[in-house]
Amino acid sequence: MKEQIKKHFSRYVAFSDLEIDEIYSKLTHKTFEKKEFLLKEGEICKSNYFLLYGLVRSFYIDNKGNEKITQFALENWWVTNMESYIKNIPSYSSIQAIEKTTVLIVDKLELEKLFKSIPKLERFFRIITENMLIAILRRNDIYLLMRSKDRYDGFMKHFPLFAQRVPQYMIASYLEITPEYLSELRRK
Amino acid sequence: MKEQIKKHFSRYVAFSDLEIDEIYSKLTHKTFEKKEFLLKEGEICKSNYFLLYGLVRSFYIDNKGNEKITQFALENWWVTNMESYIKNIPSYSSIQAIEKTTVLIVDKLELEKLFKSIPKLERFFRIITENMLIAILRRNDIYLLMRSKDRYDGFMKHFPLFAQRVPQYMIASYLEITPEYLSELRRK
Repeated sequence: MKEQIKKHFSRYVAFSDLEIDEIYSKLTHKTFEKKEFLLKEGEICKSNYFLLYGLVRSFYIDNKGNEKITQFALENWWVTNMESYIKNIPSYSSIQAIEKTTVLIVDKLELEKLFKSIPKLERFFRIITENMLIAILRRNDIYLLMRSKDRYDGFMKHFPLFAQRVPQYMIASYLEITPEYLSELRRK
Repeated sequence: MKEQIKKHFSRYVAFSDLEIDEIYSKLTHKTFEKKEFLLKEGEICKSNYFLLYGLVRSFYIDNKGNEKITQFALENWWVTNMESYIKNIPSYSSIQAIEKTTVLIVDKLELEKLFKSIPKLERFFRIITENMLIAILRRNDIYLLMRSKDRYDGFMKHFPLFAQRVPQYMIASYLEITPEYLSELRRK
């Protein structure tokens, strides 16, 4: 498990073994069963979650009572509600396990202390945040800007790993198309 | 001008005057006339732009030939095409001045050097990137998730400064509603 963290962190910044040990010692390890919530709407998100294995989704309930999925995340991805986490305000969305999921939890206050003792961790999280931003912008491209058919093709191209594991009806919700139309697109 | 930078940078991280001098010495100062492009679609974006004064928009042309506005930015905001900037790939969008605009240009390679000499600058850009992420997520809320009327109200609430200065037809494009419907909403 520490190896997975070390490999992941070292992709972006060169940390010494001692530094990895220090970071690792501040992380909490937790397993969520399928359908269990990492974060519920209305809670203040105090953590950033690193997925060791499993699959989660972020979603909220719109004013018509429909679930809207805004993000999927799987192994080696980070997930949080950024606005709630940064601003200490209640989260408008929930994070729920789609499969049994094990995460490492980075507590915000612990992370602030780590930033002080290992300043280059700031670099790591700057890069991670840039990558989150790019993922969201790319999702916007898929979601906002395209016809349903193109959205589906975009999703399959950019997120092939999700397409294999996420239930079809959730993909349909994410792409804002009907499950029936998704089946039709898949047959083609 | 250096005062504006100092004030802005000091909002997030405590820099010494010497550090501000060093950062400032690496920034290029440039004025764009109304309608001039900071970045054109297809170019590789090598800079992050800090707006000293003025107003810009990011937009792209969709596959039907329509302009789609994805972002506005004004004084003390940062603007770039993040994916192009990070990944060194051609930008799918353009950045254009709506008003005469003066920016400080942070060159990516210079910034990497600055990160080495002033590591806490990483912290600054981590925070800036988090704020960009939050702004985009909030825009998604406005844009994706709401009826036209709620989109307009959300835009007015979260971005009142833009609402005053951005031409109406651009706000309509940003909100994906017709200019006629926007006028109707404004009258109410």
